[in-house]
Amino acid sequence: MNLKKIYSTSLSLLTDLYQLTMAYGYWKQGKAEQEAVFHLYFRKNPFSGGYTIAAGLEQAIDYLQDLHFREDDLSYLESLKGSKGQPLFEPAFLDYLRDLRFTCSVDAIPEGTVVFPSQPLVRVRGPLLQAQLIETTLLTIINFQTLVATKAARIIDAAQGDRVIEFGMRRAQGIDGALSATRAAYIGGADATSNALAGKLFDIPVSGTHAHSWVQSFESEQDAFNAYSDAFPNDSVLLVDTYDTLEGVEKAIETARKLQHEGYHLNGIRLDSGDLAYLSIQARKLLDEAGFTNVNIVASNDLDEHIISSLKQQGAKINIWGVGTKLATAYDQPALGGVYKLSALKQENGDWSYTIKLSEQLAKTSNPGIQQVRRYYNQNGNIADMVYNEEAPLPDQPLIIDPLDITRRKAIAPGTAHRDLLVPVFVNGELRYDLPALASIKAKVKEEISMLHETTRRPLNPHTYPAGLEENLHQFKTSLILKLRKIGEEA
Amino acid sequence: MNLKKIYSTSLSLLTDLYQLTMAYGYWKQGKAEQEAVFHLYFRKNPFSGGYTIAAGLEQAIDYLQDLHFREDDLSYLESLKGSKGQPLFEPAFLDYLRDLRFTCSVDAIPEGTVVFPSQPLVRVRGPLLQAQLIETTLLTIINFQTLVATKAARIIDAAQGDRVIEFGMRRAQGIDGALSATRAAYIGGADATSNALAGKLFDIPVSGTHAHSWVQSFESEQDAFNAYSDAFPNDSVLLVDTYDTLEGVEKAIETARKLQHEGYHLNGIRLDSGDLAYLSIQARKLLDEAGFTNVNIVASNDLDEHIISSLKQQGAKINIWGVGTKLATAYDQPALGGVYKLSALKQENGDWSYTIKLSEQLAKTSNPGIQQVRRYYNQNGNIADMVYNEEAPLPDQPLIIDPLDITRRKAIAPGTAHRDLLVPVFVNGELRYDLPALASIKAKVKEEISMLHETTRRPLNPHTYPAGLEENLHQFKTSLILKLRKIGEEA
Repeated sequence: MNLKKIYSTSLSLLTDLYQLTMAYGYWKQGKAEQEAVFHLYFRKNPFSGGYTIAAGLEQAIDYLQDLHFREDDLSYLESLKGSKGQPLFEPAFLDYLRDLRFTCSVDAIPEGTVVFPSQPLVRVRGPLLQAQLIETTLLTIINFQTLVATKAARIIDAAQGDRVIEFGMRRAQGIDGALSATRAAYIGGADATSNALAGKLFDIPVSGTHAHSWVQSFESEQDAFNAYSDAFPNDSVLLVDTYDTLEGVEKAIETARKLQHEGYHLNGIRLDSGDLAYLSIQARKLLDEAGFTNVNIVASNDLDEHIISSLKQQGAKINIWGVGTKLATAYDQPALGGVYKLSALKQENGDWSYTIKLSEQLAKTSNPGIQQVRRYYNQNGNIADMVYNEEAPLPDQPLIIDPLDITRRKAIAPGTAHRDLLVPVFVNGELRYDLPALASIKAKVKEEISMLHETTRRPLNPHTYPAGLEENLHQFKTSLILKLRKIGEEA
Repeated sequence: MNLKKIYSTSLSLLTDLYQLTMAYGYWKQGKAEQEAVFHLYFRKNPFSGGYTIAAGLEQAIDYLQDLHFREDDLSYLESLKGSKGQPLFEPAFLDYLRDLRFTCSVDAIPEGTVVFPSQPLVRVRGPLLQAQLIETTLLTIINFQTLVATKAARIIDAAQGDRVIEFGMRRAQGIDGALSATRAAYIGGADATSNALAGKLFDIPVSGTHAHSWVQSFESEQDAFNAYSDAFPNDSVLLVDTYDTLEGVEKAIETARKLQHEGYHLNGIRLDSGDLAYLSIQARKLLDEAGFTNVNIVASNDLDEHIISSLKQQGAKINIWGVGTKLATAYDQPALGGVYKLSALKQENGDWSYTIKLSEQLAKTSNPGIQQVRRYYNQNGNIADMVYNEEAPLPDQPLIIDPLDITRRKAIAPGTAHRDLLVPVFVNGELRYDLPALASIKAKVKEEISMLHETTRRPLNPHTYPAGLEENLHQFKTSLILKLRKIGEEA
């Protein structure tokens, strides 16, 4: 096995085997081309938070555009055997896959949009076989980037305007874990990354200075600081905690004086261990007393939104935050439980048949219909979000019902300003979407978050933003559940 | 940005920018070629467990073998600017990078070996610039695979010989998060994966049947089951919880009868929600009463080692476990805190100078020396592990001291059987290691775990296996700490 081999492979097999066995089953049943509608959504905001930031669509589009089976993929599938040693798939099915091209229509909520549970981030409409096949890859890409973009937005909020630099590569979940985490963290608001490859591939600003080993490799800490600032006379952030932090600060001040004498400027010092509140306050004092009020204090060491908030409350004098592991792995909730559910199938007579999956937990029962998300707003911000069925007429004065607590309802006055969040991305397999630049996605996040009430942004125990199902959709869903349960009883 | 572009890129920039700024600084200081020794190790077994399984070496080797900067990498580095708009790197340094090839010597503990905190999994000896440069990538690769292999081993232990299938792709941290998680989970003991691409790339058995959407797409659950088993008459595992689980079991039994009549055999049913203990017991009863005692019961739904143990204690009749999110993301501890520390530098006179990084937490102070790990064992299993300095003479009767509790000591009787864990991988940049097949790494894990006392394998509050520093190394480390602290006081 070779990394290059992995990274130059086709991604069409980057899916659960059962997508392929189901594809085979649909093909055998003559159902491969039956028109179907799937929605990708999550059930709960991550990190016990009040909102989520959609991300990953660009990579999802890229995967869909390139969807095809190469000969080596087909050979692999041909080699798979069932339990009796027979080939798992018929040759004619592999021929079908060989000719397969993506022809679905996809609507999606643009990256950087604030979203809420049960809202479809992606809606796929097209031949059942295809629309099913892409489930796993869409989930892998969108679950993770949405998770990290949301985590980043929370951290940025906690940093109250300070610079935040993403540092997480060494603890990331694999190479692409690092790359897509960096992209998502940048979307969510991080100012820069330490990840040079992400800098190159995504044009994200890169940042970084030196490690403890740099200091260890010199006779003295002072020599190490002077040598580093010789190489980067205007861009040095000196790591001061290799031996003793406050002595390190004194030596950094010596180096700052030397730089000043030579016409340069020390950019900053970095604290990476110990009591960051106490040490940053002491370091700031030492720097200020020496006249270096503009030298930044960077801190790192297992930071997240909660620790940053706490340090700020303690008066820590940190103005740049290096956030690694807890951001890149979304440490306190390392997976978003996004799902992808079938909600409509076209019948032979041309009518839609709506489908749901039941569950003993109401939150896990899927929603039927061909869904769109409508966001109502005024000049003060967002008012409420409503998932509705595009195929059913909308009342003039819609009523939004929280499916998890039907007593939580919101009536929308006629004429309230609104916009629909899902926009066309593919129409019958053709890309009809202008991919926004990363910088504009990042700007969108900022704007989107500014439309949320601060109580919804609260990191713990946030106010629940009004989001739910349009009344008719809610009632239709309820009737479907009751009908299915009744069918169950009769069986 | 394009996925293919990412996956066909060179990985030489897959590193923190500071590795490159330090490289520049070393080059400017004339220290680039100074011989250095770094060790990669972790400080704590993950998941509050008693042991760790080393993994990821193969991908690390692959990265090192291919280490070189392409023209597009160098152009990117050339484009980077400092804060005053000047180029960050001199052209002559980029020329140096252009010619750079990997010439270090690397020793490592083979994949699949049981390891403990403070033991170097990888030791790199060679030119300071190179040995430093590779830090981040080695950590990214080895941290994650070691984490997941360990998680898998714990889950396998809990499953007490039942089959375990890894299902985690849709919740994995990106594409490579899924691929390397699958590889590591297989090493750690998983029997198969749902990840078809991992199956193709790593030759791991693949497994999977159908989703709820398969059932939803048919007029009735019975039709869905019959159709699926038509396509895979000997390889069907029917998902029975789309509407009502026990009714689903009844319908699966109908399908099993149909298959039996046609000369085939239903492989299993799958439970994916609800009370898995109760439902599996009821399902087993229904299946057995119908004469289908050989039909497997597969369960999934946020399983991990603790839930599997609990279900077993409750008498659940599950004999195949599908484990996804909690395995592929190592959910309860999604990062291993592996580090990479400089511990020796060759002086101009040819002597080694040993280095450590201090910390206010003793556990975070690095170890000096050129380290090897010696494992003592007898016919009952492993006795103790000792990290020692290869450059210093070893006493006949070594004493092992736990660096975190110096009263925990273990004397080793002369003549005790032992082996050294680090083996040569690269000698001066040349690969001298036969990469074992994945299956043999997997077999090694099984054997290695069998050498551990069951109290060390206990998932919670395990017995601490005796592992520490050789007495002379411990004393040398202590003297270095005291010397550095004293230097600190004089400064």
